[in-house]
Amino acid sequence: MTNRFARYAIPLSTLAAITSLALLAASALPAHAAAPGTAAAAVNVFIGTGGDGHTFPGASRPFGMVQPGPDSQVRHFRQSYPWAAGYRHEDNSILGFSHTHFSGSGHSDLGDVLLMPYSGATKLEPGYPERPHSGYRSRFSHDEEKAEPGYYAVRLKDNEVDVELTASDRVAMHRYRFHKNAPAKVILDLRSSIYDYAGKNLWSRLRVRDATTLTGMRETRGWAPGRQLYFAVRFSRPMSARQLHNREEAIEYRGFTPPGKTPADKVVVEGKALMAALEFGVPTDGTLLVKVAISPVSEDNAMGNLDEMPGWDFEAERAAASAAWNEALSVAQVQAPEPMRTMFYTALYHSMLAPSLFMDRDGSYRGPDNAVHQAKGFRYHSTFSLWDTYRALHPLLTLLAPERRNADFVNSLIASREHSPHGILPVWQFHGQETWCMIGYHAVPVIADAYMKGIRGFDANKALTAMTASAEYGPYGGLEHYMKLGYVPIDREPEAASKTVEYAFDDWTIARMAEKMGKKDVAATYYKRAQNYRNVFDRETGFIRARKSSGEFRTPFDPAQSNFGSDYTEGSAWQYSWYMPHDNAGLISMLGGDAALAAKLDQVFDAKIDEKVYAHMEDISGLIGHYAHGNEPSHHVAYLYGFAGAPWRTQERLANIMATQYSNRPDGLSGNDDLGQMSAWFAFTALGFYPVAPGSNEYVIGRPFLDKAVLNLPSGKRFTVRAEQLSEANRYVGGVTLNGKPLARTFLRHDDITSGGELVFTMQASPNKDWGKERSARPYTQTNY
Amino acid sequence: MTNRFARYAIPLSTLAAITSLALLAASALPAHAAAPGTAAAAVNVFIGTGGDGHTFPGASRPFGMVQPGPDSQVRHFRQSYPWAAGYRHEDNSILGFSHTHFSGSGHSDLGDVLLMPYSGATKLEPGYPERPHSGYRSRFSHDEEKAEPGYYAVRLKDNEVDVELTASDRVAMHRYRFHKNAPAKVILDLRSSIYDYAGKNLWSRLRVRDATTLTGMRETRGWAPGRQLYFAVRFSRPMSARQLHNREEAIEYRGFTPPGKTPADKVVVEGKALMAALEFGVPTDGTLLVKVAISPVSEDNAMGNLDEMPGWDFEAERAAASAAWNEALSVAQVQAPEPMRTMFYTALYHSMLAPSLFMDRDGSYRGPDNAVHQAKGFRYHSTFSLWDTYRALHPLLTLLAPERRNADFVNSLIASREHSPHGILPVWQFHGQETWCMIGYHAVPVIADAYMKGIRGFDANKALTAMTASAEYGPYGGLEHYMKLGYVPIDREPEAASKTVEYAFDDWTIARMAEKMGKKDVAATYYKRAQNYRNVFDRETGFIRARKSSGEFRTPFDPAQSNFGSDYTEGSAWQYSWYMPHDNAGLISMLGGDAALAAKLDQVFDAKIDEKVYAHMEDISGLIGHYAHGNEPSHHVAYLYGFAGAPWRTQERLANIMATQYSNRPDGLSGNDDLGQMSAWFAFTALGFYPVAPGSNEYVIGRPFLDKAVLNLPSGKRFTVRAEQLSEANRYVGGVTLNGKPLARTFLRHDDITSGGELVFTMQASPNKDWGKERSARPYTQTNY
Repeated sequence: MTNRFARYAIPLSTLAAITSLALLAASALPAHAAAPGTAAAAVNVFIGTGGDGHTFPGASRPFGMVQPGPDSQVRHFRQSYPWAAGYRHEDNSILGFSHTHFSGSGHSDLGDVLLMPYSGATKLEPGYPERPHSGYRSRFSHDEEKAEPGYYAVRLKDNEVDVELTASDRVAMHRYRFHKNAPAKVILDLRSSIYDYAGKNLWSRLRVRDATTLTGMRETRGWAPGRQLYFAVRFSRPMSARQLHNREEAIEYRGFTPPGKTPADKVVVEGKALMAALEFGVPTDGTLLVKVAISPVSEDNAMGNLDEMPGWDFEAERAAASAAWNEALSVAQVQAPEPMRTMFYTALYHSMLAPSLFMDRDGSYRGPDNAVHQAKGFRYHSTFSLWDTYRALHPLLTLLAPERRNADFVNSLIASREHSPHGILPVWQFHGQETWCMIGYHAVPVIADAYMKGIRGFDANKALTAMTASAEYGPYGGLEHYMKLGYVPIDREPEAASKTVEYAFDDWTIARMAEKMGKKDVAATYYKRAQNYRNVFDRETGFIRARKSSGEFRTPFDPAQSNFGSDYTEGSAWQYSWYMPHDNAGLISMLGGDAALAAKLDQVFDAKIDEKVYAHMEDISGLIGHYAHGNEPSHHVAYLYGFAGAPWRTQERLANIMATQYSNRPDGLSGNDDLGQMSAWFAFTALGFYPVAPGSNEYVIGRPFLDKAVLNLPSGKRFTVRAEQLSEANRYVGGVTLNGKPLARTFLRHDDITSGGELVFTMQASPNKDWGKERSARPYTQTNY
Repeated sequence: MTNRFARYAIPLSTLAAITSLALLAASALPAHAAAPGTAAAAVNVFIGTGGDGHTFPGASRPFGMVQPGPDSQVRHFRQSYPWAAGYRHEDNSILGFSHTHFSGSGHSDLGDVLLMPYSGATKLEPGYPERPHSGYRSRFSHDEEKAEPGYYAVRLKDNEVDVELTASDRVAMHRYRFHKNAPAKVILDLRSSIYDYAGKNLWSRLRVRDATTLTGMRETRGWAPGRQLYFAVRFSRPMSARQLHNREEAIEYRGFTPPGKTPADKVVVEGKALMAALEFGVPTDGTLLVKVAISPVSEDNAMGNLDEMPGWDFEAERAAASAAWNEALSVAQVQAPEPMRTMFYTALYHSMLAPSLFMDRDGSYRGPDNAVHQAKGFRYHSTFSLWDTYRALHPLLTLLAPERRNADFVNSLIASREHSPHGILPVWQFHGQETWCMIGYHAVPVIADAYMKGIRGFDANKALTAMTASAEYGPYGGLEHYMKLGYVPIDREPEAASKTVEYAFDDWTIARMAEKMGKKDVAATYYKRAQNYRNVFDRETGFIRARKSSGEFRTPFDPAQSNFGSDYTEGSAWQYSWYMPHDNAGLISMLGGDAALAAKLDQVFDAKIDEKVYAHMEDISGLIGHYAHGNEPSHHVAYLYGFAGAPWRTQERLANIMATQYSNRPDGLSGNDDLGQMSAWFAFTALGFYPVAPGSNEYVIGRPFLDKAVLNLPSGKRFTVRAEQLSEANRYVGGVTLNGKPLARTFLRHDDITSGGELVFTMQASPNKDWGKERSARPYTQTNY
């Protein structure tokens, strides 16, 4: 990818362009957005909806269960990657509005319960973007689209409806405004899906409950196979007519016919290709409201969840959603010139969409055994993109989100492990279902990091049992061999080098937590395992490489190789060889000293490489040399100079990364946001520090990008970060004080922040090469355990 | 079909032939069967397993939830009808042993959780009957097969295993005996199904819980679409090896790989074509026991149901099952020469397999909304073949089964109606799921008959509401038009003549119950509706015919026409024109008098018809002229002579029907047993009376076929029926006394029986044409309401 520096400096117009929405209906769309100046008002929801970001522009509460938004994808199996969120900013037509979305994922699913309002003739198929009016799909313009946290609005040109969306935790509310005297009609399409293909729908049901209410379910074989989602849809006006269809063509055995000879007579349909066309007459005020509740458990539970939003006051729901976001985002009060302030709050916003709630009002949820369970004393969350989010997203949330929310995450992980047929913690889980996507057992560092930072409200013993069970489950990812050999052998398991170093880090976090719990045996075992990264380090080449069972490194070796079947997971030796964040001292030692590490890092960033080298891997994006900011294995790398005594070089790299990899535009994320990890990296880096090794309780200081940030910590204390003389030119840290005293060390301890206080950077145009040069000033300069 | 008279007189050898089973294993199979002389010992479980009977030869408790038995069908979509019970006596190989079966149905489904033991090489596919050893299927011989109530045993020749089955309510127990020193192995095949076709399995899961336990589920699109069944399988020995397979070939998106690279590593598989090959080493005693629990709700509930059978004592379980049957069957103590005694007890046995329990130990079950509910104060039963069973099976059970059992049936129907998306009572329901098979709303007469006979333990108001809701649900079966026109119009709804007359009868039972409840308005409305049968009676031809909306009868008219698209349901005008059992006086009046009815009935029985006339309808079997004893519309017809004052002619017809339509052989039922209806007809007729109009509390007297029968009524009272001078020659009733007094009337009242007492027939060789000739002696000789 090309250098994006130019974008950073130019104030972009995306947000400005969408501040007004032309109005069709008699009563005008409310012009007021989130109150000006608030955190929510600063968010540009569209960042990442283009390019490789894959973010979700729809409406949701923080960590909300229902996440309604526009889908613009066409129905095609091969759209897994680019349309992972269902919507791409480049598209010019909308298929409809569904209720479940990932924000920033690299693989896809969801898009459940698609609704599409219209006034004209009923079309049962969506049609094609390139053929307007060929179906119920409608063109739209970004000029007539608007979104802010908890709210999304768009005018559907072809369908002649203004659509607005907002949401509570479990209930989406739609407001449709039709032309004066135009009939209100709605398509409900249970065929529609993100990552759609012919065999995805295993079964579905759609049922009329009364004149204003439908319920149903859908079971799909997608990223998560056998996923069941139940829903209830309630309209503000009674249906004046309806058609329930099963559009399956070839069914070998169709069974006997239920009552209802025509689509208009039916009160229930079952099958694999259900949809409904619903009519509501001509609303006197031109408006139809819809509430949609989802449930992992049952149609009746979805009905129960509907009660979460008893009224029909769209403005009140929108205001409540906005208030919820303002409260969540006000953990940081930030001063910075635009677009930095917008980009920061957007990053914070994107960090609070997942892991999302996935539990009914009565406490029931569906676990990885696909069975229904009852949460006792916690709220079950799912959508854990753990390979990504253990790095910075969860550390951001352990710092800024309420303890109860973090405890809910940990309790959800523990509960999932108890329900798991394999008896292990989630790997990549959503809607309670395991996908087995990516590598590692990275629920482990999430729990350990929370525990080390004093998050309580879960059973630490159960947690540790779950962690060791996951680390010792032989059939998973070559662990059987890893435990025997001290590394994952490439002749038995693919991507063996990546697995070995990531396992070693996860092991270290188990050791940290066990040590803190006083479980010395466990700690000793896992501190030993944490050194396993050494077993795949090739001193000859200076890279992490995969060994075979025999002990030999696999040949031939090309450090830029990253394809499937290589030694690495979505990466190359250039990207993976610096991944022992718990023991950078060990890395330095193996490389032969500080200078050797710094030189290697320079080689990473300054390499001139052919674009084709990584072009075959869609997840490896955001390249600076071999550094791929668009994917997670690189995320800590710029911070490593500090371990070699040269934090000023980190400062240089960060300025470049921030300028080239992020912008206030739809394509403003250089890679998948990955459920908030890319954004959490941005938030930490903007603040001036980064959690290189979750579980260490240390944050490596980079450099700040905000003039001032006040963190309103969950404890009620405040931690302020100020950057004096910050400017485009003053990109180096001259000196740092913590609570008025000079800070010699180049890292913060978690306690430094949670105690409250003030961190002041003095920025300057030239590097201060002395600060942090001393070994004692560096983070974990020894193997400090 | 040909005359079967010859069979009746010849003592058949089926039961005798199967009394011993050769033994392979070191410890012998127990030789003792059900204790000799007991009711259970008198049952020939194989009656109906050949021919058109479709009965189930496996092991079950009375109305048991799990009904394990042998499946001999090959996997083929088109085997719906002949292999409806999974097993046919004509087959010479067994596919395996599954856990859910219908007994006597005309359509098919079930066959869940197939197990097959073997010792030799593992074969993952079942193979073909005509190619022994081509798969896990095994040949067997009826000489090495044995069954009695609650027990089934067979030697698998090719697999070298002796298999025995028994069951508690929710748990099947298998005992496998292998050759000395032979390994014990078991196939578990979730692909296998009765009525199998490629798309039937929507989804399934198989999971290893521990070394002896597997759980799983299967969701199918069969007769009932979207049916979910969960199960738990526990072995008496730990698995020494296992392979879990998904044998699907083409999967567009297969997802990421769960842990377990090989079938032997996996602890869980999900997909559409699952099976497992399990090994258990070499048992020292040559024996492996297996317990299989099923649940409509969840795998965990199936595990909970396993606790119903905590031990591993096969003999004790078999004895308990036998005792349960003896208790259930001892409602009648019968004296009769063989094979009549065997045939009677077999009929009673076949009358107690359904409606079967379908509720977990914790009271939860799955209703027609496919959602989980909790039974409060009753036990949920399902498998209601109502079009068949309202006629004689339910009346037999209201007479002989405990009040609580009957209340459970009614409560299950009411609960199902409350869960129904349509708000109506079940039509043909199994495993809680509606199939919409056949016509009418015949849950209505089941409830009304129970209520009229004093069965309590359910909410009569709720019941009546459910009944009228079902009778007034416009979209069902042309009811919208029926309510407007007084008949179902053939231009709007197929089989309109049959529907009209059956609706009218059902309506009458609503009126009866409403009247008894003091709801005069409802009674008046439905007594009026009950006369609707008149609207389809064509006085010109003397037949029931379908009218069009315009009021004209549809032409051309052929009273022998019975194909799909005709005016009738599995029948012709010759069969359906006498169906107003609640108002035979009305029928006589329309036909023009007693003699006219008797003449019509003679025409029915004595017609010489070409075999081809009904050959296209597989359900129309057991022909005597136009009379088709193999299907239900004929079941009351022989009893109608009595309404015309000629009960002696009924007596003649019954002798012929009993002799030609039933025998003590596998093909000893001339039509589908229909979940006990054919058998209940036999039981009533053998006793000497029949419930022509359920809800009337009257039984029309036919003639007895037993020397003596003592009915041990649920109240504790006894009612004895004796037939003096009964012989093959003495087929006519000379006279009848009730409690010593001559009985002039040709019907019994329900109270006559439930009060206890003695009914004595004096049989003779020539008809007594005077008895019952008087109008006052006849059942409902007037429109008596």
